[in-house]
Amino acid sequence: MSKKAFQDSYSAEFSHCYGCGRDNPHGLQLKSYWLNDEDKTHTIAHFTPKPYHTGGVPNNAYGGLIASLLDCHGTASAAAAAYETQGRKMGSTPVLRFVTASLSIDFLRPTPIGEELTLCGKVTQLKDRKATITLSLSAGNMLCATGTMTAVRLKSE
Amino acid sequence: MSKKAFQDSYSAEFSHCYGCGRDNPHGLQLKSYWLNDEDKTHTIAHFTPKPYHTGGVPNNAYGGLIASLLDCHGTASAAAAAYETQGRKMGSTPVLRFVTASLSIDFLRPTPIGEELTLCGKVTQLKDRKATITLSLSAGNMLCATGTMTAVRLKSE
Repeated sequence: MSKKAFQDSYSAEFSHCYGCGRDNPHGLQLKSYWLNDEDKTHTIAHFTPKPYHTGGVPNNAYGGLIASLLDCHGTASAAAAAYETQGRKMGSTPVLRFVTASLSIDFLRPTPIGEELTLCGKVTQLKDRKATITLSLSAGNMLCATGTMTAVRLKSE
Repeated sequence: MSKKAFQDSYSAEFSHCYGCGRDNPHGLQLKSYWLNDEDKTHTIAHFTPKPYHTGGVPNNAYGGLIASLLDCHGTASAAAAAYETQGRKMGSTPVLRFVTASLSIDFLRPTPIGEELTLCGKVTQLKDRKATITLSLSAGNMLCATGTMTAVRLKSE
C-alpha cells in the first residue's frame, strides 16, 4: 500500500512506540490503514514475524507479539475513527491519541511464523473519550486470535 | 537470585520463546520464581525494560511489553504450580507445559522505563488441564497493570 499509515500521522512526540513508532528503529513498526477508501469502518494491518519472534516451540509466534500487534492496531484504529468522526484529516491538531485501558485476547490456535499475518479492527463504540475496538489476527484464512480493547483518548493540550 | 528459574527448567524444545526462552538470544529472557521457599503459592519475576521498549511517548513502556511479561510469567506460574501439585521437581518428565488460552489486561497507569519492574502471579485454580492465574506488574510501590489468564496444559507425549 502506498497510502500513509495511521501511525505515520502521529505527531513526533507519539512516534516512539516499540510496536508501531516510525521513530523506533528497534521496533516492529506496525502500519495500520483503513480497509479501503470506501470502507472507513474496518481497519487492516499486515505483519510478518521474524524468525526470532518464536514462542516456546519454534514455528509459532510468542503470545506477547500477538498482544503487541493487537494493542498498536487497536489504538491506531481508535484514533483514526475519532478523526473520521470529526471529519478531520488524521494528524491534524488538536491531536487525537488513544491509550489502552484494557485489552482481552483469546488465543484460538498457534500463530505461525514465516508468513504474513493480517490484523483487522473495528471501532464498535466511540463516546466522549472512550473507544471500544474489536480486533482479530489471521494467518491466511485461519483465525488465530481475537481481541477486545477499551481505549481512552488522551486529553488534548 | 541464584535459584533456577522456572523457564530454565523447560525442556529444550520449549526454550525458544522470545519472551522467556533461555535459547532465544534476541528475546527478553524473563525469569520467574516462587516468591520464596516457604511461599509456593505466589510467583515473582523482575524485568528492567530497555530504553527502546518505549511506548508512544518516551519514558513509558509499550503495552505489548507489559502483555509479553504477564503472558510468560503466567504460563510459567501455571507450570510451576502443576509440578508442585504433583509433588514433582520442575522439568521432570512427563513435561507439564501450559499455553495461553486467554489473557485480559487492565492498564492502570503508565509503566515507567529505566527501573526494575516486578511481576507477581498466583495460580488461583488448577483443574485437569486448565489453570487460572492472576497477575500484576508494579514499579516500586506503584501498581501499573493487572492481568487474568486462562492457560491450558499441553498434552504430554
